[in-house]
Amino acid sequence: MNLPKGAPMVVVDIRIELKPGVADPEGQNTKKALELLGFKNIRSVRSIKLFEIDLDMAEREAIAACEEMCKRLLANPVIHNYKIELK
Amino acid sequence: MNLPKGAPMVVVDIRIELKPGVADPEGQNTKKALELLGFKNIRSVRSIKLFEIDLDMAEREAIAACEEMCKRLLANPVIHNYKIELK
Repeated sequence: MNLPKGAPMVVVDIRIELKPGVADPEGQNTKKALELLGFKNIRSVRSIKLFEIDLDMAEREAIAACEEMCKRLLANPVIHNYKIELK
Repeated sequence: MNLPKGAPMVVVDIRIELKPGVADPEGQNTKKALELLGFKNIRSVRSIKLFEIDLDMAEREAIAACEEMCKRLLANPVIHNYKIELK
């Protein structure tokens, strides 16, 4: 990497979740499996994909870059919502 | 559900991530794909599984239940670390 020493590093969580109404078989089956194991009072289980990304750039740029990553690769706008969170 | 009206509901995030040193091909390939798209200054990408669970119980019980769920089903102690977060 050709970055100057001490270049800022930010850690970003990109959370890719299914839009409301989109079927989530992984979540549903996890709920069933937990109930079969005896766990009670589970109202729902949703499965979510998270990418934790380390970026060598300033915070504002990092958020813009992650937004672009979601649009171009990580999320499918038909079925996914995404949230970007600096850590 | 046979819960009294107004039973507490808590939302818990269970974050299942790979232990340091465990190979993460999904994260590595996501990083490569982002770089092929022209994104720069990515230091690393880690793929993480998240379960968002709605539970009808008090906060303290919910955390204990989620701890137990991780041990019995959701996480593999050989390769995973997990974090439980009330939302």
